[in-house]
Amino acid sequence: MAQLPTVDDVAERAGVSRQTVSNVLNSPGIVREGTRLRVESAIAELGYRPHASARRLRTRQSSTIGVRLDPISNGISGSVLDRYLHALTEQADARGMRIMLFTAVDEDDEIRHYERLRDGADVDAFVLTGTRYDDPRIEWLARERMPFVAFGRPWGSAPLDDPERLWVDVDGQAGLRMATEHLIGRGHRRIGYLGWPAGSGTGDDRRRGWELAMASAFGSTAEDLAGLATETDEGVPTARRAIETLVRTRDDLEALVCASDSLALGAMMAVREAGMPHFPVFGFDNTPVAQAVGLSSVDQRLADVASGTFELLMGATGRRVLPHGFPAGDDPRHRLITPQLVVRRSSHLEPVEEAGGTTSGDHEPTEKEQST
Amino acid sequence: MAQLPTVDDVAERAGVSRQTVSNVLNSPGIVREGTRLRVESAIAELGYRPHASARRLRTRQSSTIGVRLDPISNGISGSVLDRYLHALTEQADARGMRIMLFTAVDEDDEIRHYERLRDGADVDAFVLTGTRYDDPRIEWLARERMPFVAFGRPWGSAPLDDPERLWVDVDGQAGLRMATEHLIGRGHRRIGYLGWPAGSGTGDDRRRGWELAMASAFGSTAEDLAGLATETDEGVPTARRAIETLVRTRDDLEALVCASDSLALGAMMAVREAGMPHFPVFGFDNTPVAQAVGLSSVDQRLADVASGTFELLMGATGRRVLPHGFPAGDDPRHRLITPQLVVRRSSHLEPVEEAGGTTSGDHEPTEKEQST
Repeated sequence: MAQLPTVDDVAERAGVSRQTVSNVLNSPGIVREGTRLRVESAIAELGYRPHASARRLRTRQSSTIGVRLDPISNGISGSVLDRYLHALTEQADARGMRIMLFTAVDEDDEIRHYERLRDGADVDAFVLTGTRYDDPRIEWLARERMPFVAFGRPWGSAPLDDPERLWVDVDGQAGLRMATEHLIGRGHRRIGYLGWPAGSGTGDDRRRGWELAMASAFGSTAEDLAGLATETDEGVPTARRAIETLVRTRDDLEALVCASDSLALGAMMAVREAGMPHFPVFGFDNTPVAQAVGLSSVDQRLADVASGTFELLMGATGRRVLPHGFPAGDDPRHRLITPQLVVRRSSHLEPVEEAGGTTSGDHEPTEKEQST
Repeated sequence: MAQLPTVDDVAERAGVSRQTVSNVLNSPGIVREGTRLRVESAIAELGYRPHASARRLRTRQSSTIGVRLDPISNGISGSVLDRYLHALTEQADARGMRIMLFTAVDEDDEIRHYERLRDGADVDAFVLTGTRYDDPRIEWLARERMPFVAFGRPWGSAPLDDPERLWVDVDGQAGLRMATEHLIGRGHRRIGYLGWPAGSGTGDDRRRGWELAMASAFGSTAEDLAGLATETDEGVPTARRAIETLVRTRDDLEALVCASDSLALGAMMAVREAGMPHFPVFGFDNTPVAQAVGLSSVDQRLADVASGTFELLMGATGRRVLPHGFPAGDDPRHRLITPQLVVRRSSHLEPVEEAGGTTSGDHEPTEKEQST
């Protein structure tokens, strides 16, 4: 990155004080016209980018996006949102935008924060995570016409193609279908599924990917599939117990795909302790722990999720979000990112040599974008 | 949390428009005195807290702390900084402060961001992480008299008690000493150490904790200790290879303490594959992966690190940071947090039953605070 010019550079070029440059940016009316023009020329020549606070004063825009960050969670999959935040921050910077964090104890409290941040013109837009059926935050934001993008589809609370509800999401169904088809391609037939209890949009969608792959390859019926699936709440120990039970009743099980890396890690521990060290297991999220223990997983491609977020907020051309405005007619409103398989030792029948880094699978990165 | 009053509440109470309230907050000179007094009474009666941007306009303070967030890292130990950021955000909110994120490609780029954020009055202070010997960022901040707190001691670049360099840190030496003494208390004698190459302040300090425990319990000499220690770059596969080598040459090794969870995880894999499933291993950082795989570890108590950060920035009374100012005479300038052992299956000779959550060890949480 080339060094960016500062206020001091502008002041030196224009032959004025630092305070005068600040006045031109913040209160141009109080600066003599000749001086103002000289400072403005220096700004243009140097390519100086005015600061966010100066822009705020002039334009009433903050160039800032608000993101809620929850209290510390020790779960493995919590790191997905952290990695999304890293990617958002990096891409915000490249677009002259910033990320402001806040915390909230629940959804109502989050809405109160939205209100205060909006009233203070502290942020131009929000990015939401952890959305759910009939999410009251989305209701509030849509009603108040406050720009936002949700990472996660508005399962159930609105049509997926509602033009006022911008979302970016990862196609979990495609991800687990790819993982299942990868195992089918290696000769497995009785591939089990470990997921969460029915009723979560994300979980049901991932399970559907496994079901479609199995039905397509083997004509599996709903009954066949029910015998190969088990469900449990998120967590390593719960997954471990669920798979200990499943492998006792289904000794013909050959491989397993899971709705998360936490579930997959518990499953890996269970099958290894049951004397099946090379039983293939696939996780979902490609967390650091998957990389560390050699667990094959579905990567959500969070950098693409972050760039999709900014495209929806700013348009493909990088046009700034308008306060209380929405994208113009033809701008995209939704992005569905196709995830990517990362194949490691855990999904091979025989142990493979691995240097420890990511072993790219035989699925090249692909991305399917859906604009509605 | 009680619901906070909004601009609308103030407008309703004062019988004026929302815009008038905004004018009173931002440009009181343009509001008639009677109206202004009525709005100010409503603000006082409702306990309305003006928004950050209004405060910024009036006070030239942003109530915002800048934190650099690096691009996505897949390392296990990277999650320590993410969890610190969660704790900072939570505690900032409780103090009426906010966190603004930015990214940077290197230290020089980070300094340019400091400059721009300072020039724009976008932030009042910075929190630094990943400090090192002779850190140029600390040099710049101290020279420019910009308030900051470093998570990490200024190893080598200044006296640790320099009153102009505020830092909070975790006493890694105490942490590894506690871990080593825990293993000694379980009857182990030849306890090895796996750490990073000499020269990192943090790594050398952690190693010293192991050395002190061994010298104190067994009178181990430098030569004894050298034979029990090995070093490698951070990472699971590098650690695995280092321990494969160490256990071949030292078949009398009984247990191991490590400078990080990544190293410990690699070590765990190596000893298990060498046919020693119950060889005790201790990590450092208490990452989610440690919890997931049952690895005993040293927890950095990041919530205490975050509250220490705010105490240094705002004083024990919560007094606001003054732009370009520093704590008054008696305010603390440094905080050294004593970490806490979290004992799980990996440090027991025999497997223990574990429900999967954190098994508290026999060390109660303790905190040593050092004010200089």
